Amino acid sequence: MKLVIVGGVAGGASAAARARRLSETAEIVVFERGPEPSFANCGLPYYIGGEIREREKLLVAKLEVLQRRYRLDVRTGTEVVAIDRPNRQVVARRLADGETYRESYDALILAPGAAPVRPPIPGIELPGVFTLRNLEDSDRIKATLEQGVRRAVLVGAGFIGLELAENLVRRGVETTVVELQDQVLPPLDREMTTPILQELRQRGVRVFLGDSAESIAPQEGGLSVALRSGRSVAAELVVLGVGVRPESRLAVEAGLAVGPRGGIQVDDRMRTSDPAIFAVGDAVEVRDFVAGAPAQVPLAGPANRQGRIAADNVFGRDSRYRGTQGTSIVGVFNVVAAITGQSEKALRRAGTSYQKVYIHANHHASYYPGARPLSIKAVFDPSGGKLYGAQVVGEKGVANRINVFAMAIQAGMTVFDLEEAELAYAPQFGSAKDPVNLVGFVAANLVRGDYPQVSVEEWEMGGDDRAPLIDVRTPREYEAGRIPGAINIPLEELRNRLSEIPRNRPVVVHCQVGMRGYMATLVLRQNGFEAANLAGGYKTYRLFHPEDEAVS
Amino acid sequence: MKLVIVGGVAGGASAAARARRLSETAEIVVFERGPEPSFANCGLPYYIGGEIREREKLLVAKLEVLQRRYRLDVRTGTEVVAIDRPNRQVVARRLADGETYRESYDALILAPGAAPVRPPIPGIELPGVFTLRNLEDSDRIKATLEQGVRRAVLVGAGFIGLELAENLVRRGVETTVVELQDQVLPPLDREMTTPILQELRQRGVRVFLGDSAESIAPQEGGLSVALRSGRSVAAELVVLGVGVRPESRLAVEAGLAVGPRGGIQVDDRMRTSDPAIFAVGDAVEVRDFVAGAPAQVPLAGPANRQGRIAADNVFGRDSRYRGTQGTSIVGVFNVVAAITGQSEKALRRAGTSYQKVYIHANHHASYYPGARPLSIKAVFDPSGGKLYGAQVVGEKGVANRINVFAMAIQAGMTVFDLEEAELAYAPQFGSAKDPVNLVGFVAANLVRGDYPQVSVEEWEMGGDDRAPLIDVRTPREYEAGRIPGAINIPLEELRNRLSEIPRNRPVVVHCQVGMRGYMATLVLRQNGFEAANLAGGYKTYRLFHPEDEAVS
Repeated sequence: MKLVIVGGVAGGASAAARARRLSETAEIVVFERGPEPSFANCGLPYYIGGEIREREKLLVAKLEVLQRRYRLDVRTGTEVVAIDRPNRQVVARRLADGETYRESYDALILAPGAAPVRPPIPGIELPGVFTLRNLEDSDRIKATLEQGVRRAVLVGAGFIGLELAENLVRRGVETTVVELQDQVLPPLDREMTTPILQELRQRGVRVFLGDSAESIAPQEGGLSVALRSGRSVAAELVVLGVGVRPESRLAVEAGLAVGPRGGIQVDDRMRTSDPAIFAVGDAVEVRDFVAGAPAQVPLAGPANRQGRIAADNVFGRDSRYRGTQGTSIVGVFNVVAAITGQSEKALRRAGTSYQKVYIHANHHASYYPGARPLSIKAVFDPSGGKLYGAQVVGEKGVANRINVFAMAIQAGMTVFDLEEAELAYAPQFGSAKDPVNLVGFVAANLVRGDYPQVSVEEWEMGGDDRAPLIDVRTPREYEAGRIPGAINIPLEELRNRLSEIPRNRPVVVHCQVGMRGYMATLVLRQNGFEAANLAGGYKTYRLFHPEDEAVS
Repeated sequence: MKLVIVGGVAGGASAAARARRLSETAEIVVFERGPEPSFANCGLPYYIGGEIREREKLLVAKLEVLQRRYRLDVRTGTEVVAIDRPNRQVVARRLADGETYRESYDALILAPGAAPVRPPIPGIELPGVFTLRNLEDSDRIKATLEQGVRRAVLVGAGFIGLELAENLVRRGVETTVVELQDQVLPPLDREMTTPILQELRQRGVRVFLGDSAESIAPQEGGLSVALRSGRSVAAELVVLGVGVRPESRLAVEAGLAVGPRGGIQVDDRMRTSDPAIFAVGDAVEVRDFVAGAPAQVPLAGPANRQGRIAADNVFGRDSRYRGTQGTSIVGVFNVVAAITGQSEKALRRAGTSYQKVYIHANHHASYYPGARPLSIKAVFDPSGGKLYGAQVVGEKGVANRINVFAMAIQAGMTVFDLEEAELAYAPQFGSAKDPVNLVGFVAANLVRGDYPQVSVEEWEMGGDDRAPLIDVRTPREYEAGRIPGAINIPLEELRNRLSEIPRNRPVVVHCQVGMRGYMATLVLRQNGFEAANLAGGYKTYRLFHPEDEAVS
């Protein structure tokens, strides 16, 4: 068996190591265009920022180890420029001298990755304008920074863009982020990104949403970025992070099937339309296993697993890829945001019916020092309660909870299962009722039809006719900040003040996070009122209306 | 409906709140023996240590809130001393004046909790000797500490005992822990507690294992604790933490069915043998849903959920308790240990066949600063791969991983599912191949029969005839510490040094954590050797043999 692998980073490196474990006798050739075989992509912003000091650290599998431990024939600095499928050969080109040669294969695994999108902006080729994909890009950005950069513009507020923003601020660079959408972190629902946006602004990052770079021009001592809004931002460094596209040119030219978004199409064995050719990682189209639809999900974890699976199948094992659920996490200064499964907007786009809940709770027992608030949003099937997706944002305990939701989604669990989840509790690590349990409690109540809930958007859609809003928090909470138009009747007084509440029309009640509002809703409904609880209370309202902090 | 609840802490308080939400009109009476209704049990050691400063903080539901928000009739300082089942009445006694009275019920929920075991040790009644169950115990221990305690003896090295040890050291108290078993944290497997034991000793705690307190006697200015080993330890404070027993006297006297360990027997609706009486929390016998056997599991999370379920059923809802999986976590200075599901020793006791794996990996990407090692042990069905239990020990990321395993066990997932788990990865939060995935990889390889593994115990059982051991680490690693008798052939040289390895008998290979040993095992087996990999490598060996640090 002679296996050729194109690309030596996450998916390719995993495929190569797995292949060797499956066969001591196979000939395994790995072509890697870059000068290093396997590096830690996700560490690049932190290397630029200086958090990761030694470049060496990012080289996860050194050439020598791959050669000596796995006996791999790794050819760095060599690009595969064509696939000759009839003859089962690839055409490789050595970048150093431009020489090309042919290499035969019995099986071929394509792991070429994805390339940053380079939008057609005038001036994109100017010195000082970069994309960030590999170590060499990082080296160039770092070198530019070391020449003295006072101001930077980052185009795109995705995961890498925001990580880079943090790292540039850490280096003392005045940083501006420009994002086409009306929110940062586009994979998340907008309101769940509010704490990230606030953190960025608090740390001095200028963020322009709903805006884009129209052109970049040289100016005295640097660059000037003209935005669609008419703004103009001066900078010595511009980094474009507006997404990636699969590197599928090789596959397209070889006549392999490619999806509408450019991803190489594979079956669940990672096999392309040519049975001798497999493809893995950011270059392939995967199945989103929650939605069941094709998707492009450029993530390192899935790439690694796909590499193993492709190698398994090359050596005749029946190994299948189940699809991707898109679990992602990002830290932006002190705030962490994460998602797994479907967002609300994705469900809405797909026309899937859903229900949602918001939970605001501390990351560990409130009575233990250092408890920090978490906000969680979960979306689920309104009839059966099956969990579709979750988003978590907060300072601490975010990875913990998103991983719990990721397991629940993988297992096809329902919100009833979340009620029962038995998670670790000691005061410094959790709560007797973990935030995940709270999601389960609230969501299960809704699926059971115990009481109605109204979302902030639904309530506001009523416009001038919207239902009267009763704020059941304490007068002190009410005074400190309230929803315009809300009437304050504290829960403790509610039973004695029922006469103040309109009987002939629906009313909405709310508290700080939804818990007292839930109790108030039940009190009112058991007394004959048509009451509903505002989902997630005042804290959720503030995720939708962050600027409007003043008391109305 | 008139509902009477005996006990107002975790399970009782949850039942009462849930009951009110289900019915505005029910009469709900809560009897609580203590002066406060609901307090945070699990915070007591940290209140004693001063980490939690305000006593107030531990009162999770204040009397006034319970009365005004939930309209509960809470009677603190009142003990229920008898149940008159034929007349559906309880007999209550006010502790202040000793007066008793009767209270009728339609439904009764017992949530009396568990009491610390007081072993029959002479001197146990002396001043300065305590158990720790409630706020009043904490107050007494705190008062004693404030009188000036230089030395303390803790009898029992369970979760609370070790939390207390940390908190006493924090207060500058010389602390000795005495434990009957040959390990700390008896619910865990012994080798997994090694890092906790080392941490205790490094922090100056004296730990005597396999020993017990025989008697306590007064001596000049304090107490003297005589141990079974003949040692005698002087102290001004002695705290007994040798376990709890269900407070089931009331149930027993009322003729309710009680299990062999003293737990009140209930069905999955938390109903006792009397259909009008329910019981929840530490006082009941639950079903361990992994083993399917009855168990006593005194944990706050399950108590809370049982309280909700009992209330549901009182009001005619079909709500069921699924059983407990015993998820627990404890922090001891900087080291955290956690367990969920079955331990190896529990499986062995039950005669269940199992396989196990050990993983040693960093809690987040190794290339990002601050990565700390985690050790994970997982036990699973050797044929189907179903996960039975997991234990995690390390400084960081422990709660995160134990929660992932807890969800996997709840969902009945297999080690194949762990391979596929899509967990959060950014360099500061995880790894592209999370430690949980590594558990899946190694365990799935074993279930598939890809290669044989030998545990440290199995290898050592061979005695003088044990298989030759080949250490495939680097010479530097080998020199820094090795397993007695091991021969060093680095993995990179293995293929060229096959002639040095015996062909006519089984050999065992090992590396640092098991990864290179796995590769070496495959190399040898593909070359005709009868090789097996030492489970979890040198790091696992050192969990079994922590003292033996010297190079042989």
